[in-house]
Amino acid sequence: MSGVEKRTIWKFTPGNKTAEAVEDAVAVEQAFTVIVNGEETGTIVCTPSHIEELAAGFMAGEGIIRKYSDITQLEVDHSTGFVYVKLQEGMKVDKDQMSKRFIGSCCGKGRQFYFKSDMMTSKTAIKGASFSIENCLKRMEELQNASSVFHATGGVHNAGIADSDRLIVIRSDIGRHNALDKLYGNWLMNPYSLRDKMIVFSGRLSSEVIFKASKMGVGLIVSKSAPTNLALEAADELGITAVGFVRNNMCNVYTHPDRIREFIG
Amino acid sequence: MSGVEKRTIWKFTPGNKTAEAVEDAVAVEQAFTVIVNGEETGTIVCTPSHIEELAAGFMAGEGIIRKYSDITQLEVDHSTGFVYVKLQEGMKVDKDQMSKRFIGSCCGKGRQFYFKSDMMTSKTAIKGASFSIENCLKRMEELQNASSVFHATGGVHNAGIADSDRLIVIRSDIGRHNALDKLYGNWLMNPYSLRDKMIVFSGRLSSEVIFKASKMGVGLIVSKSAPTNLALEAADELGITAVGFVRNNMCNVYTHPDRIREFIG
Repeated sequence: MSGVEKRTIWKFTPGNKTAEAVEDAVAVEQAFTVIVNGEETGTIVCTPSHIEELAAGFMAGEGIIRKYSDITQLEVDHSTGFVYVKLQEGMKVDKDQMSKRFIGSCCGKGRQFYFKSDMMTSKTAIKGASFSIENCLKRMEELQNASSVFHATGGVHNAGIADSDRLIVIRSDIGRHNALDKLYGNWLMNPYSLRDKMIVFSGRLSSEVIFKASKMGVGLIVSKSAPTNLALEAADELGITAVGFVRNNMCNVYTHPDRIREFIG
Repeated sequence: MSGVEKRTIWKFTPGNKTAEAVEDAVAVEQAFTVIVNGEETGTIVCTPSHIEELAAGFMAGEGIIRKYSDITQLEVDHSTGFVYVKLQEGMKVDKDQMSKRFIGSCCGKGRQFYFKSDMMTSKTAIKGASFSIENCLKRMEELQNASSVFHATGGVHNAGIADSDRLIVIRSDIGRHNALDKLYGNWLMNPYSLRDKMIVFSGRLSSEVIFKASKMGVGLIVSKSAPTNLALEAADELGITAVGFVRNNMCNVYTHPDRIREFIG
């Protein structure tokens, strides 16, 4: 299985006074450094799968590209962990803008925007389709069941794009942001309307996760885990419906409940 | 409670056809930008507690400082989220070395070192005290019981330094690396011998987590979660005992079992 390595470990179980040596599966981790137009742009520590998508999603999140055709060349060297990217003529990386703190409160955008790249690339979600709570719960259940690396290792986060009825694509990574970046890259390569789609996600909802949903233009994000206050402020402002703690047939709706059928009445 | 904000949310529970509006606690998230000698060095999205420790741990991890007295001034502006640091005369930030990919395989250090700052600051753990499996399980239980923000929000990671008998210090953060950086900063401010201590940690063990333990000089790290293969390769090489999946009175020992009493016999 890709993303998994076998190791001999020592397992302690209750009652056993000594350890038992067993073969176990652990999640694989590798670093990929993205070189854009010859310049080192970032190093991503990740699960080594779907690296083209990861690199594309990372660059879109940082505002380096807006669409996949901004890239004229993208080569992954798996053995050394480098991704070589060339952009369309005239495009360049403004490293000063990347992960640079955004200061001020112009544009009506609030304090939840820390990074200039987020402020420049986030957009308010358009109201489109509605979803039932059952849709959210079922798609989360399918996400959890579908991840073979998670079941083998317990060590990865999963993210998926779904419509009401089914999961369309799933990506996994040891880093929760990477799982989302892979989804983003996958979508950039073959864009389709996201107005009636949701993101289903195993990880916590920090503001950065909401920004990624916003950049993709998805209006509903459904998470197994907890949100932060700034994630919810960002979701409030960007028009995103945030649903959290989806587990044991329960969930919390935090923002914009008007996408949830039970609220529409 | 610090690190927690109240919000009205809508809770769906099985059997209820409609949502119930309730007041819930969510984890607070804030960005702090560290300005060292007037230059923006990094922005850390975190739980706004123990920011002096977080900034010190971050700078030590990046190789900017080696000891707390390298800092001559450290001021936190909580309202704007800035940390202003001045270093001893002659010291400066080499931004080119920060988070810069390390290329090559000199020094006998293997491919798990991606970042120059890690290669320069990691050190092999010295063999010292031994611990029983029961020590590991009990300290993890105490860590989980001790975190009030976690119990309120479900949204933070916890990290602690412990000896065989008790937890000495606990720090919590929405980011698992931040929780460790706070521990590191706390220790830098008041250093004591870590040869007979362990780190107890709620998060997954990626290679970056092992490097942080290594920088602090701790030989045993005990995690509730899963490790990655590179974390285990780094632990192998740096002499660190990695224990994972500490839950339900069970655990896995992955590397250097010679610190665990049950193996010494």
